[in-house]
Amino acid sequence: MENKCCGDWNFRGSHAAREASTAHLGFYSSKILAQCDFEKTIYPPLGEPALAHDVAENAVVQAVQNGRGNAYAPSIGLPAAKKAVAEYLNRDLPKKLAPEDVFMTVGCKQAIELAVDLLAKPKANVLIPSPGWPWEVARCIYQKLEIRNYTFLPEKNFEIDFESVRKHADKHTFAIFIINPHNPHGNTYSRAHLNDLANLAKELGIMGWCLPGWRTGWLALHDLDGVFKCTEVVSAAKEFLGITSKPPTVIQEAIPTILNETPKSFFDTRQSYLRDNAELAYSRLDDIPSLKCDFKPEACTFLWTKLILEKFRDINNDLDFCKMLAREENLVVLPGIAFGDRSGWVRHSIDMDTLTLNIAFDKLTDFCDRHTNFSLAMASSTTDGA
Amino acid sequence: MENKCCGDWNFRGSHAAREASTAHLGFYSSKILAQCDFEKTIYPPLGEPALAHDVAENAVVQAVQNGRGNAYAPSIGLPAAKKAVAEYLNRDLPKKLAPEDVFMTVGCKQAIELAVDLLAKPKANVLIPSPGWPWEVARCIYQKLEIRNYTFLPEKNFEIDFESVRKHADKHTFAIFIINPHNPHGNTYSRAHLNDLANLAKELGIMGWCLPGWRTGWLALHDLDGVFKCTEVVSAAKEFLGITSKPPTVIQEAIPTILNETPKSFFDTRQSYLRDNAELAYSRLDDIPSLKCDFKPEACTFLWTKLILEKFRDINNDLDFCKMLAREENLVVLPGIAFGDRSGWVRHSIDMDTLTLNIAFDKLTDFCDRHTNFSLAMASSTTDGA
Repeated sequence: MENKCCGDWNFRGSHAAREASTAHLGFYSSKILAQCDFEKTIYPPLGEPALAHDVAENAVVQAVQNGRGNAYAPSIGLPAAKKAVAEYLNRDLPKKLAPEDVFMTVGCKQAIELAVDLLAKPKANVLIPSPGWPWEVARCIYQKLEIRNYTFLPEKNFEIDFESVRKHADKHTFAIFIINPHNPHGNTYSRAHLNDLANLAKELGIMGWCLPGWRTGWLALHDLDGVFKCTEVVSAAKEFLGITSKPPTVIQEAIPTILNETPKSFFDTRQSYLRDNAELAYSRLDDIPSLKCDFKPEACTFLWTKLILEKFRDINNDLDFCKMLAREENLVVLPGIAFGDRSGWVRHSIDMDTLTLNIAFDKLTDFCDRHTNFSLAMASSTTDGA
Repeated sequence: MENKCCGDWNFRGSHAAREASTAHLGFYSSKILAQCDFEKTIYPPLGEPALAHDVAENAVVQAVQNGRGNAYAPSIGLPAAKKAVAEYLNRDLPKKLAPEDVFMTVGCKQAIELAVDLLAKPKANVLIPSPGWPWEVARCIYQKLEIRNYTFLPEKNFEIDFESVRKHADKHTFAIFIINPHNPHGNTYSRAHLNDLANLAKELGIMGWCLPGWRTGWLALHDLDGVFKCTEVVSAAKEFLGITSKPPTVIQEAIPTILNETPKSFFDTRQSYLRDNAELAYSRLDDIPSLKCDFKPEACTFLWTKLILEKFRDINNDLDFCKMLAREENLVVLPGIAFGDRSGWVRHSIDMDTLTLNIAFDKLTDFCDRHTNFSLAMASSTTDGA
C-alpha cells in the first residue's frame, strides 16, 4: 500500500486545549528554563524534593507493603480517606462536614477542574483573582467561560477589593474563585475578611470556591443551608468524578494516618523555616533599588515583587527580565504574565536553605546592578566597540 | 441576611457528565451491590487487593523514602519513566520508540480520555467494540461524538469482523478503538490479525488506538511514518496534558525499576494460575444448562457467558439476573448491558483462589437450577398457595 499524505487521513489533533495550555505556568517556565546552562548549577535547584514527615512516608510505605491499596476505589474516593479528611477539616468548623461532603481528587488541580466543569454553562462568567495562580484560568478558557478579574488592595495587606467584585458581578456570574493563602501575594485572609466575602457572595447569589494552597487531593462541599444539594452541585460532582481519572488508592489508604498522626511540631518547624527565609529575602530585596516588594508574607514559599522598569536600561518587561536573568545567572524567577495580566512583576521562590538563598540573591543583585547602571552600560558599550 | 431559595442563586450543577456517567461500570455494579447482604461474605470478596511483586513494592517504597518523588514532574511525564516505558515496549518493536513518543498518564483511563479528547471534532464518528469496556464510550458521549459499533466473529475466536468495520466507516470516522486483550471476551489478537487491521485502518484513513488491558499509565504514539506529527496529534497531546491532572511523581519514579527488574517468573506464575482458573470455571459452566460460554480464554480474569433466557422461568434480562443473583446468593456478576448493547450476557470474575471459585460456582449452579426448573416452580407455587 502506498504511503498516504498528511491530508489523506480522516483525523487531526484537536487544538481545543491550545489556548488554555498557554495559560499554565509550565508554558512560561519552560521558555525561561530553555535559557539556562544545564551544565552548571541552576537556582533554585531544579526538582529539589519537598520534605515529608516520617509519619507520611511510613503511612504510604505501609499501604504499599500490606497491599490494601492495590484495588480500585469508588470514583468519589475511599471511604476511610473521606472520613479522615472530614474529621481533619471539622477541627475548625462549627457546623461539621460529613464524609459524604468530601470528594477525593487527583491533587488540588483536579478539584479545580471539577469546580469549573461542574458549574460551566453557556454565557456564564466567573470572577478570578488577578494576579492569581493560573490553573482555574486554564480550565475556564477550555470551557469557554468569560473570565472577569477582581483585584486587591495593596494598602490593606492585599485583601480582596470588594468594590471590584461588585463592579464585575452580574446575574450571569456563577462563582468567585479565592486562593487562600493567596498565590503569588503570599498572604492569608483573616476570618473576618472571609466572612465579609461570604456575605457579599450570598448577596450577589454567587458561589465562592476556596482553594487551599497545599498540594492535597480533595474537594469539600460545606453545604451550610443545603444550597449545593438543591442546586444539584452535589449530584453533578458525582457524575463528573464518574467519568474522570481517580487518585491512586495506595495514597488514599495512607491519608487517615497522615492526617491523624503527623505531629504539629513538623508544621511549626517548617513555618519558622519559611518565616526566616521570608525575613532574609525581604531584607535582601530592600538592597536592590530596581525591585520593590510591597508585602512581606508571614511565612511563604515565595515573594511577589514589582520591577521598576524605568530604572532598567535594556529590559522592557517581566518576561524579558526572567529570560535574561536565566541566561546570564542561571537563576529562575517567574514572570507576572504567568499569573494573569500582571506584567511588570516577578515571583521569587524562597524555599531553599540559607546558603543557597543568599547565593540566589547575590546573583539577582549583580544582575539588577548590571542592567540598571547606565554608566556601566556606557563603559561596556565602549569596550564592545573597541 | 435572609436565606435564599434555591432558584435565587446564579449557579446550578452542570449535568454535562450525566449521560456519560451512566455508561460507566460503577453505575451498574453499584445497583447490583445494593442487593447484597453486607453482613455475610460477598462473592467475589470485595476490594480484594491485587498481588504486586516485591520488586514493585520495594521500588515505590524506595521512591517514598528517598524523597525523590516529592516534586512536580513535567506535564508530559518524568523523563526517566518515559525512557523506561519506551525501552520496555521496544523489546517487541522492529521500529523503536523514543522517550518523546511516550506520555505518562493517570492510569490507563486518562490515556483513553486523552485519546478521545485530542481527536474529538464536530460531526465526527468513532468505531467502538461491542461488547467492550465502557470507558471510551463514556468519554465519547461526553464529547458528543457519534458512536458506531463494530462486532466480532464468535466462530473465529472472536476476531474483529472487518466487514462490520468497513460497513460503519466513512470519511467522518477518525478512529477505531481496539481493546487487546479484549474485555469482556478475554481473547488476545494474533500478530497477523492486528497487521490486517492496521492495513484496513490505513486504507480507510482512520487511526487505531490499542488499549492494553493492564492498569498502567502511559500513552505511546508509535509514529511509523510521521503521521501523528503531521496531523498535529503529538502537539495536541502535549496541550491536553498541560491542562489536566498529573500522575503521582512518586509512582513514576518507581517505574524504571518495576519494568526492568520484575522477574518473568512472576508473570508466568500468575498466568498459569489464571489458566487453571479459566479451565475450572469453563468446566463448571458446562454443567449449567441455562448458561452458554462460547469461548474459553487462554488466561484471563473473567469469562463472558450468554444467558439462555428462554430456559429461565422468572428472569427476563441480564440486569434482573444479576440483581436476583446478588440478592439470593450474595454473588456479584456484571450484566452485559454494562459493556455496551449486549443484554442477555454476563461477565464472571474468576480471579480468586480455587476454594472460593468453587463456592461461587456452587452458588451460581444452585441459583440457575432454582430459576430454570419449572416443576420446582410449580411445587413452590403450590406450597405458597397452601
